[in-house]
Formats: sequence, structure tokens, C-alpha cells
Amino acid sequence: MTARLAVALVHHPVLDRQGDTVTTAMTNLDLHDIARSARTFGASDFFIVHPIEAQRALATRIYEHWVQGSGKKRIPDRATALEIVRVVASLDDAYAALGGRSEVDVWTTAASARSGSVTSYAEARGVLSRSVRPTCILFGTGWGLAAEVIAGADLRLEPIRGAGAYNHLSVRAACAITLDRLVAPAAD
Amino acid sequence: MTARLAVALVHHPVLDRQGDTVTTAMTNLDLHDIARSARTFGASDFFIVHPIEAQRALATRIYEHWVQGSGKKRIPDRATALEIVRVVASLDDAYAALGGRSEVDVWTTAASARSGSVTSYAEARGVLSRSVRPTCILFGTGWGLAAEVIAGADLRLEPIRGAGAYNHLSVRAACAITLDRLVAPAAD
Repeated sequence: MTARLAVALVHHPVLDRQGDTVTTAMTNLDLHDIARSARTFGASDFFIVHPIEAQRALATRIYEHWVQGSGKKRIPDRATALEIVRVVASLDDAYAALGGRSEVDVWTTAASARSGSVTSYAEARGVLSRSVRPTCILFGTGWGLAAEVIAGADLRLEPIRGAGAYNHLSVRAACAITLDRLVAPAAD
Repeated sequence: MTARLAVALVHHPVLDRQGDTVTTAMTNLDLHDIARSARTFGASDFFIVHPIEAQRALATRIYEHWVQGSGKKRIPDRATALEIVRVVASLDDAYAALGGRSEVDVWTTAASARSGSVTSYAEARGVLSRSVRPTCILFGTGWGLAAEVIAGADLRLEPIRGAGAYNHLSVRAACAITLDRLVAPAAD
């Protein structure tokens, strides 16, 4: 992989259990876990997308504690992960940081194939390895990304299938598996 | 996969940052995330291994809330995941629930290959698919499983490699990736 890879955790617009569009609360552990996974798999940026200023301020405080404050002294490896956190108000702000929407390939993830055609992980892995443009992979909190976000994507990743019908991974687990499938070195 | 697959989250004996053997505190989100991943990938049992009774009581309360209590009404899918949680005091108790240590293939995971030979995920996936015995995959909290646990395993999984030198996945992420690599349906 040579081009820039970014991950975005979206708190709005996402769905709730009833399928309504909502804004979810930020979770401290999402920030840590996804930053660690993103860093491990070579992402340059992990966008925390939240429209509410107080929530962005909280994310920024966590970031500063671990990257500049006493957290860094205690666990330096955590600073290396959280350094890639970027706190933004909207997806447009995330795209702007990557050069603007027209310069970014936006990929979406979903637990079920609700709308549009999906791309297999095997194919997407090839696409990513050949890409020379920034790619931003979106993960939805709550019950997943709103339909308009998925509809507006350049590529929609297939759902992660498990061993049976049950498929309710946490966003932290889904993000880890997605990055592993797309980026991990090929098996020997 | 036809044989029984179990996952165990070990809070003792595990290492701290200095490499000393310690007991870690249970984390609510570990229980949820790993139960969801384990259920998604067809595990029959998720053992929470903790030697301290008060911590086991806490795990049991969380279990009961989601499997029998008001949590089940609110999010039925979560009950399906947490149903496979088994709270035990020791690894021996986990093995006993699977028929006894001599009847179980114990596999360990680690972020670095500290001791003994390791098995690649590709090879381990084949072993698991052909196995007719229960397999129990151990995940360490803190800074990983104690050396004697790894030394006593029947199979040691290779570390999950990322895109570069940084490799500090959360146990929740590592568990998700491990199960995906070992159990997920082959790509079309």
C-alpha cells in the first residue's frame, strides 16, 4: 500500500434501532481501540466525526492526555496510536483534510447490504493496493451509517459474514477485521 | 468447522508492563465485544477467567442483565451474544467445562513471539477445520498471557502483524481478527 489510508468513525448521520437518523455519543474506548487498530494497519488519519462541540472537546481532551499529557509518559505506545486522531465536525471536514471530496475515495462499511452494490474484501484489497489517491473508510456508530452516506460512497464494502446467521459485531471489532482484511501482509 | 470452539479471556495469570505476573480488572466492554465476536464466528463458549470472586460476581451481574433482565428486552441480539458467557475462576475450570484439559486443544495468542514455536493463521485454520476435539483459544488482558500459559499450550498462534513495526491492538481487536482469520467463510 502506498497511498494515504484514513479511517472515520461517524457519530452523525447514523441510524438508531428504529432506523431513524440520530447523533450518537462518543465512546472513549472507540477512540482508543480504533486508533490502535488504524495505527497497526498503517492508517495515517483516524477522524472522529461529531457535530456537537462539547463532544469534540471531550475527544480532544482524551487526545491531548494521551499524546501530550501524563498518559504519554505512562504508556508511550498509546501516544503513537492516538497521534493519528483528528477531531472534526463533519464528514466534509474530514474530506477537506484529505484534499477535498473529489480527491478522496470514500468507502463505506455496513453489517447488512441495504443499498447499492457491494464490493468483496478480496477485490477491495486489490483496489486499495493499486490506489494512488487517499482512501477514507467510514464506520458508523449506533445502528450504522445513514442511507445517504452509503449511497454517496465510491465503494461499499460487503458485510462481514460470520459462521452463521448472527452478525452483530461491535464497531471496534468490525473496524479491526476490515483493516486486517484490506491491509494485513499476505500470509507466508 | 464441526467441533466445539471456545474463547477464554484471561485476567490471571497475565503480565503487566514490567513483565510481572498480575491479575487485571474486568472490563465491561471486553465482555460485550468479545461475546459478540465469538458468537458471530460460531464459538459455543466465552469464558471470563477471573480468580477474584467479586469480579466474577460483577461479570455474572452483567450477564444476567443482558441475558435474563431488562437488557434482553431492549436489545435481544445482545442476549444472543452474552448467552455464551461462562464466568469461571481459573483456566482449569474452563477446561473442565469442556471435558477436562486432556480433552481440549488449548491455543494461545500473543502480540509477540516470546517463547516456543508459533503456528501461522493459515495452518491453524486448517487444523481447526479438521479438528474433532474442543478447541479453546486464550486471550490475555493486560500485557498478555503469562509465560507458563503460553508454554503449556498445544498450539501458539503467530502474532498478528500490521503494516509496519507498530503492533498494539486491543484484546478486543485481536480477538475479532483472530476469529475472523480462523473461522470466517472463505472469500467467494
